Amino acid sequence: MRITTVGLDADDTLWHNETIFRLTQDRLRDLLADYATHEVTTARLAEIEKRNLRLYGYGVKGFTLSMVETAMELTAGEPPGRLIADILAAGREMLSEPVEPLPGVDNALAELSDAGYRLVLITKGDLLHQEQKLAASGLGDLFAAVEIVSEKDASTYARVFDRYGTGAAEAVMAGNSMRSDILPALEAGGWGAHIPYPITWAHELAEAPVDHPRFAELATISELPGWVRGLA
Amino acid sequence: MRITTVGLDADDTLWHNETIFRLTQDRLRDLLADYATHEVTTARLAEIEKRNLRLYGYGVKGFTLSMVETAMELTAGEPPGRLIADILAAGREMLSEPVEPLPGVDNALAELSDAGYRLVLITKGDLLHQEQKLAASGLGDLFAAVEIVSEKDASTYARVFDRYGTGAAEAVMAGNSMRSDILPALEAGGWGAHIPYPITWAHELAEAPVDHPRFAELATISELPGWVRGLA
Repeated sequence: MRITTVGLDADDTLWHNETIFRLTQDRLRDLLADYATHEVTTARLAEIEKRNLRLYGYGVKGFTLSMVETAMELTAGEPPGRLIADILAAGREMLSEPVEPLPGVDNALAELSDAGYRLVLITKGDLLHQEQKLAASGLGDLFAAVEIVSEKDASTYARVFDRYGTGAAEAVMAGNSMRSDILPALEAGGWGAHIPYPITWAHELAEAPVDHPRFAELATISELPGWVRGLA
Repeated sequence: MRITTVGLDADDTLWHNETIFRLTQDRLRDLLADYATHEVTTARLAEIEKRNLRLYGYGVKGFTLSMVETAMELTAGEPPGRLIADILAAGREMLSEPVEPLPGVDNALAELSDAGYRLVLITKGDLLHQEQKLAASGLGDLFAAVEIVSEKDASTYARVFDRYGTGAAEAVMAGNSMRSDILPALEAGGWGAHIPYPITWAHELAEAPVDHPRFAELATISELPGWVRGLA
């Protein structure tokens, strides 16, 4: 068995993301506290996000638009003073949030790169924002290729690992989302290493595969180089 | 001289785009007519768009957020009844606008493809939206590759024509924007065919090169196959 290529998810695998969404969502709930309970705001935002996903795709800009829509709805079209401006500002803050690699990321990527594996970043989200986060993270030089995609399904992984590697059968995909990073990579014939992040967006939840021969659950990204080398 | 690859811009080269932005902008001016003259709304939106470009990048979602910000500002933070909801709806309509190739596009692309040129779509904008427009246009199968990029500069063209062709020196870039499609492609060492669209976003305006040996001004995309073949 020979692995040539390691695909890595970005958000919540290389750096924090969901935490920033949750903190912004908390701000929205506070801003709307006079109009709706926290539970109602959370539920309504989740519904509106889900409904808009088909048109907006993933990322902060669509999330901001969904927050504005939620606020308009919960205030019955009469948002007070600065509410909408505050939501727009919260969205812009998310886009300019500093980016710092999660613990162990620098070392794990350097170790894989030094061992000769081709690293490919595979992520969803807003194109420009993901490029800016990668630049800010300082990790850019470690990647042989970067693919920002609108959806992560089996055909995405087959295409990316064909183009930038030697096919999915010789590629590992590592990430925090069972639904987007692991299951479709396995379906494409690749290997999957699930590295959980403390919180997961409901949309990304899925059951772990049972007794799958090409799947591993890792505690942290620091275990990734050892697992990949063990497949040789 | 040998040309192997033809890069094509999408918005306002293969299908209408700026017209849809202008029509939506007209709607915004009407919605805000009680608060500001048409000129003030246009000028304020242009400033806000420009200021946000660094964070939002190109595309409908960022444009919608800038329209909301303009409305908040011009109504002094007190938008009437359905104004913000109407702006959100206008943005969603832009994202679901039907896509039809401009006159001559189908034939020109088919002719180039049949003649053995490798066609590469190179476009800015929202990732998901551009993919959806390409799918809706029915032109997808004619392209060997699709690159949705956050910025079109000389290094973008060098990278894309290296990856999907045989380098910029053997590639033509065709598009309606002098600033984004032509000048940087020429700077990268490629060829440029400018195909004007009746209206151009101020941000994309630039002077045509004078007496440049690798540049042509074409009246319509129907002239592209003949010009490309003439370079052989």
